Amino acid sequence: MTQSATPAYRRLSVEERKTQLLDAALSLFAHRAPEDVSLDDVAEAAGVSRPLVYRYFPGGKQQLYEAALGSAAEQLNQCFDEPNETSALSRLSRVLDRYLEFVDQHDTGFSALLQGGSVVETKRTTAIVDGVRRSAAEHIYQHMEISEPGAPLRMTVRMWIAAVEAASLIWLDNDKQPPPAELRDWLVEQFVAVLKVTAGRDPQTAALVATLAEENPVPAA
Amino acid sequence: MTQSATPAYRRLSVEERKTQLLDAALSLFAHRAPEDVSLDDVAEAAGVSRPLVYRYFPGGKQQLYEAALGSAAEQLNQCFDEPNETSALSRLSRVLDRYLEFVDQHDTGFSALLQGGSVVETKRTTAIVDGVRRSAAEHIYQHMEISEPGAPLRMTVRMWIAAVEAASLIWLDNDKQPPPAELRDWLVEQFVAVLKVTAGRDPQTAALVATLAEENPVPAA
Repeated sequence: MTQSATPAYRRLSVEERKTQLLDAALSLFAHRAPEDVSLDDVAEAAGVSRPLVYRYFPGGKQQLYEAALGSAAEQLNQCFDEPNETSALSRLSRVLDRYLEFVDQHDTGFSALLQGGSVVETKRTTAIVDGVRRSAAEHIYQHMEISEPGAPLRMTVRMWIAAVEAASLIWLDNDKQPPPAELRDWLVEQFVAVLKVTAGRDPQTAALVATLAEENPVPAA
Repeated sequence: MTQSATPAYRRLSVEERKTQLLDAALSLFAHRAPEDVSLDDVAEAAGVSRPLVYRYFPGGKQQLYEAALGSAAEQLNQCFDEPNETSALSRLSRVLDRYLEFVDQHDTGFSALLQGGSVVETKRTTAIVDGVRRSAAEHIYQHMEISEPGAPLRMTVRMWIAAVEAASLIWLDNDKQPPPAELRDWLVEQFVAVLKVTAGRDPQTAALVATLAEENPVPAA
């Protein structure tokens, strides 16, 4: 859609203009594979000329993609924040709700990014994605009030995060079925289940599982 | 190490020569990141000249990498075969043993490949990796004697495979600790645990869990 040029060409500060271009890029990269987004598309979506896009992003599409990815990663990191008011598992549920909403809103771009092999994928883009994974793990330790997670717990948490990513991709492939709330409960239950397996091998995880069970008592299966 | 040129330059058939170059490439790509392997390295390891490598692989390093990856994927697929003699979970254990041996023998290349963002990563290389994941899932359904896995079971199996991949990468990062046999048991237990979570939502998975429990009775925790 071509927008009216008048509002877009009003005088913006450098930062405002960059933000505007980034927002346009992010909404395009969210719903298309990176190879299906051109610099012309970004210019058109922002209602500006192609040379103007280059003035702000001289590295062209690659630079815009990385900037958009960085801004999406920041959004995602903010999803992980959650006040310490409720039990750790309810907080995890709320974080997962926001995460699944993010996945829903960035569907095609999310799949393209995590499936790999894209032309715009570089060491820098994978570093951004790994940063989000690390941040997710750190938030989990914080929510669980574990300041020094040992190797078995770290491995379990990172395996679960990988499983959640896989679930997100399959969920997108399956026309976003099951409904997000159902998927979220399933993921939380899996989290508890894999922690219990590790608890049999690791005292730190065993103590965590005991704390979680006190907070969220469930009838034995 | 420069090998003596004599045996390498003896007249080989086209197929023999290709296999020889591929083997040399595979052993280099197994233990180094792709950017740290040059065509000269492959030529030297095979004891041939660089032009000879180009004659067989005109696409150069990218083509060699993809061919080596294809041959590694085939090896890995063979790991998944296991005669139907024992219980499904013992078969899964044996497959995991071979898988972890493969990871051990291809450490650096395995990490580089799965961590993504490498210069040699393309749609073709990710298709090869996805092919292995699909084959792993299909083998699991076969071992579990499930001919038509429904969406919940498929999602669970694919999530577990993603978790196993993550575990492999962390295991390599952690100087291959815990010992493979311990990691294998941990992964098998996690598999059963996540199946049990899905069993609460899906009759097909519930029936599978019941069958596995009959085959491998374990005392209740």
